Parts: sequence; C-alpha cells; structure tokens
Amino acid sequence: MRNAPPSWSLISIEQLTRSDLEELFAAAYRHRSALESGEPCSMSSEAIVATLFMQPSTRTRLSFEAAALRLGGKILSMSDPAASRAGSEWKESLADTARVLNGYADVVVLRHPVVGSAAHYATMSTVPVVNGGDGAGPGSEHPTQTILDLFTIDDLCGSVDGATVCVLGDLSQRCVHSLLAGLSLFSDVTVLAKTEETTRLTERELQRHARHGLKVEYVDDLAEALRRSDIVYACGHEDPTHEIPLDMRLDPRTLRGARPDLRILHPLPRGVELPTSLDGTAHAAYFEQAANGVPVRMAVLERILSSCGSAVA
Amino acid sequence: MRNAPPSWSLISIEQLTRSDLEELFAAAYRHRSALESGEPCSMSSEAIVATLFMQPSTRTRLSFEAAALRLGGKILSMSDPAASRAGSEWKESLADTARVLNGYADVVVLRHPVVGSAAHYATMSTVPVVNGGDGAGPGSEHPTQTILDLFTIDDLCGSVDGATVCVLGDLSQRCVHSLLAGLSLFSDVTVLAKTEETTRLTERELQRHARHGLKVEYVDDLAEALRRSDIVYACGHEDPTHEIPLDMRLDPRTLRGARPDLRILHPLPRGVELPTSLDGTAHAAYFEQAANGVPVRMAVLERILSSCGSAVA
Amino acid sequence: MRNAPPSWSLISIEQLTRSDLEELFAAAYRHRSALESGEPCSMSSEAIVATLFMQPSTRTRLSFEAAALRLGGKILSMSDPAASRAGSEWKESLADTARVLNGYADVVVLRHPVVGSAAHYATMSTVPVVNGGDGAGPGSEHPTQTILDLFTIDDLCGSVDGATVCVLGDLSQRCVHSLLAGLSLFSDVTVLAKTEETTRLTERELQRHARHGLKVEYVDDLAEALRRSDIVYACGHEDPTHEIPLDMRLDPRTLRGARPDLRILHPLPRGVELPTSLDGTAHAAYFEQAANGVPVRMAVLERILSSCGSAVA
Repeated sequence: MRNAPPSWSLISIEQLTRSDLEELFAAAYRHRSALESGEPCSMSSEAIVATLFMQPSTRTRLSFEAAALRLGGKILSMSDPAASRAGSEWKESLADTARVLNGYADVVVLRHPVVGSAAHYATMSTVPVVNGGDGAGPGSEHPTQTILDLFTIDDLCGSVDGATVCVLGDLSQRCVHSLLAGLSLFSDVTVLAKTEETTRLTERELQRHARHGLKVEYVDDLAEALRRSDIVYACGHEDPTHEIPLDMRLDPRTLRGARPDLRILHPLPRGVELPTSLDGTAHAAYFEQAANGVPVRMAVLERILSSCGSAVA
Repeated sequence: MRNAPPSWSLISIEQLTRSDLEELFAAAYRHRSALESGEPCSMSSEAIVATLFMQPSTRTRLSFEAAALRLGGKILSMSDPAASRAGSEWKESLADTARVLNGYADVVVLRHPVVGSAAHYATMSTVPVVNGGDGAGPGSEHPTQTILDLFTIDDLCGSVDGATVCVLGDLSQRCVHSLLAGLSLFSDVTVLAKTEETTRLTERELQRHARHGLKVEYVDDLAEALRRSDIVYACGHEDPTHEIPLDMRLDPRTLRGARPDLRILHPLPRGVELPTSLDGTAHAAYFEQAANGVPVRMAVLERILSSCGSAVA
Repeated sequence: MRNAPPSWSLISIEQLTRSDLEELFAAAYRHRSALESGEPCSMSSEAIVATLFMQPSTRTRLSFEAAALRLGGKILSMSDPAASRAGSEWKESLADTARVLNGYADVVVLRHPVVGSAAHYATMSTVPVVNGGDGAGPGSEHPTQTILDLFTIDDLCGSVDGATVCVLGDLSQRCVHSLLAGLSLFSDVTVLAKTEETTRLTERELQRHARHGLKVEYVDDLAEALRRSDIVYACGHEDPTHEIPLDMRLDPRTLRGARPDLRILHPLPRGVELPTSLDGTAHAAYFEQAANGVPVRMAVLERILSSCGSAVA
C-alpha cells in the first residue's frame, strides 16, 4: 500500500494501488462464492473487531460486523453519536479513546462526523484502523464503500477499465470523493457528472483527477448522459432536507433512452432521486451492490489481520 | 406449517398447527433440561441471528440473543427506535432494510411498531424472519411470546387441553391476540375475559375464536373468575399511562378464594395489576414463564435454521 | 472471600482479602503476558457474560466485553440509561430485571446510577453479579476499577505495601471509595489527600480507614505532596460542570519538584485536572492503567466462573 499509516490502517482510498484493489477483488469474489455455497470459511481468526460508530449508520456497522463474524472473528460494538464531542475537543477526546481501546480489539472500524478523524485516530492507535466514513465535504473518505463500489462495477461490467460512469447528485459527499479517487486508478474511465452548481468539485480536485488520467465532464442533460453510460451512480444530497431538483431524479422516463445494460448503483439509504418504481427493472443493481458489502469487507479485514500476524489464528 | 411464508419465516401464531406446537414444546423441554444440567449443546450452528429492534424491548431482544448463543450461533444486534420511519414511508424504508440485510444474517428477528411489518419484511427477505412483535391492536402478533406462554401452561398444567384461562387486562394487545389464537388450537379451552369496555375483542374476533372451538366468556367479578381458573394471564394495558381500575388488579384479597394451584402468568414488564406482594406466593409463575423464553426461542430458531439447510452446521 | 453474596458475586472491594487480591494480580499478570504474546487463551469457556449498563460507560463496558471474548466466552450487551427507572421504583424494576435475566447469562456485569443497586440485584440473581459501578457518594463502589488500580500500583512500584499515594480530586467518588478500602488491605500505605472542603471524606470513613491502618493526611500544597508520593491518583470531580480550582490541576510546573519515578494514574475520562501536555512525560501511566483493564477483568471473570462450575468448559 502507498503511504500506509502504522500497522496497515485503511484511512483513505488513496493508499491503495490498482494491484491492491485487484487482490481485494479476488478475495471478495472468493468470499462471495463461499458465502453463497454455504461453505465454512477456510480461514479462521479469533480476532476481535471493534466497531466504534460515533455517527449513526446501522447498515455499514452491521455489514462490518457480519464480515467479522463470517471470518470467524468476534465483535465489540459501540454506537454512540454523543461520544464525538463537539468543537475543538474532539481531537483530545478521540485520542484518549484510541489509547484506551488499544488493548481491547485487534482492529477498530471508526465512523466519525469530522473529516480527518480516522487518520488522527490511527496516529494514536496501536492496532489497525479502518475508516468507516469520516465527515463530509473536501477530504472526507469512505474507502470500503468505494472498494465495494469498484468491485461491483468490475463484477457488472467485467472490468473497471474503460467504464463510463455517470455520477448523479451532490459531489461533495465522502462516497463520491472516494469513488472518483478509486476510479482514477483504472484506465480510460470517463465520469459524466450531473450535479447542482453548489455541489461541484473544487478546481483543485478536478486538476488532481486530470493528473491521474480521470476525465470528468459536467453534463446538463441526464437522459443524454445515461445514453452514454455503463453505470449511473446516484447518491442524493448530503443534507437530507435539501430538495433534489426534478432533472436530477432517475425515473422510467429518464431511463427510456439508456442502454439496456446500464446499471444503477446507489450507496443507500435512498431519497427521491431513486424511486422504488425502478426496483423491478433490469437496470437496478443497488441491492447487489449492498450485498457485496460483506465479502468486500471480509477481504479488507482479512488483509489487515494477516498483515498483523499475531491476531490471526 | 400452514401458509408458511418463504423460507419458513414465523410471522403469526396462525401459521402453526397443534402438532407444530407439540414438536416445539418437546424441543424446548429438551433444551431446558440441557441448560439446567449445564450440558454442552448437542447441535452446533455457525448461523448468524440478527435482532432488529425498531421498538425498545431489552428483554425480548436479550432472550433471542441468549437463545442464539446457547445454540452455538452468533448475533448481530440493532436497537434503534428511530429506524422505523413514521408515516407512509415505513414500508419502503423497511423493504430496503430487508434487501440490504439479506446478505448479513441467516435469520432476522424483527420488532417493529407497525401491524403487518413482519409479514411485509418477509416478502422482501431471502432469509427467514421471526416476528418479535409488530404493532398493537387488531392484527398485531407476537408468536414466540405465545409459544412460550402455551409451553408454560403445558408445563404447569400437564396439558393445554381442558385449561380454563382467565385473561385480565387490555385484550387489544398483541400478546393477547396471539395467545387466544394459540389456545384455539387446543381442545376444550375456556377463556374468562376480565377487561374494560374499551378493550374488548371485536365481534369478528369473537366469531373467529368460536369457529375454532374456543369459548370466550366476559366476566365482571375477578375473584369469582379466579375460583374457576387454572391460569390467570394478567397483561396490563397497552398504554402505560392508563389508570388500571381497582377491580382489575390482582392482590392477596382477590386471590383468597382461588384454587391453590391457580398460577399467575404475565408477559412483563408489570404494572399495578401485578403487585410485588404476590411474588412470594405459590401462585406466582411469571418468572418461570420468563425463564422459558430461552429454551422456547432455541426451539424456534433451531427449527427455522434446520429448515434452511445451508445455515446449519 | 469475606461476606460473599450468593454464588460469588463481586459487589464491593470490601469482600476481598489481601490474598484474594494477590491471586487476582497473579492471574492478571498471566493474562497480560498471554495477550501480549498473542498466545491463545489456555482456558476456554462457553460462558455468556451479560453487560447491563443503565448508566453510560462505553469504556468500562467494552473492557468487560473484551475480557469475556478473550477468555473464549460470549457476550450479551445492553446499554440503556432509560432502563433505570427514577424514584422509588428502581428497586422493583431492577429486581424484575434480575429475575428475568437469570436464565439468559452466566454472569451479569451491572452499571447502575443508584448506590446499593448491585447488592440489591445480587439478592435476586441466581447467577454471579459484578458491580460495574453503582452510584456516587457514600456507599458507592466500583471494585474492578480498584483491582486494576491496585494491580497497576503493584506493577509500577513492585508492591502496594509502603506506597505513598496522593489522591487528587473529589473524594466522594466511587472509584476513590473503593480505592481507599483496597489500599487499607496493604501495609504501611500513606494517602495524601488534596481535595476541596466540600468533597472530603466523612469522619466515619476516616475512622474506618484508621482502624484498618490506612493513614489519610489532608494536604494543602499539591507540589509539596507530589514530592513525597510514589503515585498521584487524579480523578477530577463527580460533577463534570464543576470548575476545578487551579491548585488542584496537574501540570508541568506542579510536577517540577516531584520524584522522577512519580507515576500519574487517572480512571479516565479526564478533565482539566490532567492536561494532555503531560501525556509525553515519564510520569504518565494512565494509559498503561487503562490497558490493564482487560487482563484484570479476565482474572475477575475467570475466578467467578470457576467458582460456579457448570458455566466453565
């Protein structure tokens, strides 16, 4: 891994090379097959995975916990939005938490409302840390969401290379940040971005993506963009009370001209941008995507634990 | 089972035949003996049981989780009243939850404030669902509470057949709904109902019970009813702020004329209808009843898991 | 143990003799070495440990749960401040909880806001109870915190005998109550107490400590007390909104005259009495102390479970 923090924490998608991702994909395919066939897990681990969720996210938490249990590990679970102190105190408070929890678990999965919190936690942690989502806006990350998004594209399209991905919604969100950074590791990927004026990428982000060979093109006409896309990644708006404009919602009419094999992804939970009327269509792939959360997180935890040594049986 | 939803979910007590119940009772007796003797569990399962509690109930949740652990299984735990969205959105939200969690667990136990939520969840779930209580009023159910209630009557009286059961309290509650439907599977059962005018059964419910051979008789005088009963099932009122009338509370005076072997059941937690002064009497059986929660839920989970195949070692 | 409640519950530090503590220390040293070397746990237990936290304390709960998992056991977890009913009802409510949970777990760890709640719970429990902290003020206890505090002093100083311990902060807190009672089991211990007028020990407490041979001396000048001490135990104030006076805060200046081997302990979480500027100094020992929570609680759970028999494999 590039720039790996101590003991192989996974803080940012930018730590990973393309070959890291390919290894993780291979492990996730293997775990998914084993889960589907009901075969017992070949690798056994007595490791304890602690999930520290200082911002609510039942699905991400349960998906990590299911991955830990399926690997034969054990879980310590903590969900407490109040545990992330407001204001300038969060750093001290989180550092103390890290130093206290050092002796409790073999891996910590952290969800926290502040950008940079996972990296800060990792500097104080003697065990590996997985960033389960930190903050929103520039610098925020959700690397395992991106690994499962990329894995799903690989699975649906045969490869991420050459894919045209329409990203629909608020581009300032952490899942989009991490996704674009991840897509830039592949060749010949085109991003068609349909977003509001207020939620565009910064100039600096655009330049960085360009340097990595990722083409990002803003589009006005969603239906037109969908005609050119292999994947549409809808993600709503960071602020759930924000009213999403009509021309930024998917619906059977918008999809009329799309290619038959266009597949819709969404990190869930959904809003009006993804009506339930699409669930029965061949385009819908967001529940397959969600189901990939367990094998992908098994692959991530397995890699982290095997890089520690002592924690793995 | 009758009308079993896909993959043997347990949504309603009405799915079960008398012989289903007898099998479950036999398994629960076996589990209870094993637990009491401290013998290791003969059956081993690596199954993951997820408890999704969208309405608080620490005791029911812990009882299911203890049953899962005693069977050798693993648990994913989620308690979040806020997760059950209000208004017309609950169906969509719950359906999405079901489809996301499909890959996480081998069985889901659902507690939800809306009548019909467990059946709705089951239609979207690829894994079996156990209704851990859905809503209140007509149509609400809590089948495993009823199985343990019937198991306790079987244990205390030698048989449910021929029992006279005084039901005391708000008949609109889900534990009463399910109990009366369960009692109707046995022969020659008489229900003496002591309730307020506003919490009587509907005419339709009365007719349905009559069709199944269950005699329901309203009574005014509690002491008189207790003299005729083998069991009194006290259950308080759905609304905890409702003031329970004096003539609907058990106390040593009301019980003075009761048969020495009259036993008191209560789903707990209790209110003024069940004073602690009764705890030391030979009539009290509600803690025995609560303790039966674990072996009965072991029997239910074991049956569900063995009907899946892949999930059981 | 002295005055042991039924089935070896651990309610108060006063149950323990010095030789009990020495046995627990030996077991904790053994567990700590095994954890550090990554060796599999020699003892295996299928026991279920339930953590009932009716007052928030993520760290204490996770430390008990980690200890249970490291011993090979399983956990049932309940954190619900609302579960401790206010007013005169708490006793009835807690007694019912105990009687319902009897069948669910092999050991219960209870945290509750009322003094005496753990002892009350134990009278209704058929399984051992560990007091994870009950209330504040006279009579409150937190025995496992004290065992780990004493273990840490033994580890840092080579022995608790002969130690001079400066206790800094609100002496009415449960961790101080239990600590002083624990220190009185050792020989030739001197306590230098730096506290506010309003948070001194009661005359009765002072007399009891004197009877046990524990010298408690009030001091005004913190820097002077630190010059005489092996250990300073800072603990802040029970009320987190209380403004801690300047002369009751540790800082590099106060510590200037201290012995180089003076070590600072703190039960955490910290307040202004323990600035982060001390974290990098050789005096800081509070994170070592916190890390001792797991092996010490392993020793306590192991001892309790081995005194039951049936629950241990």
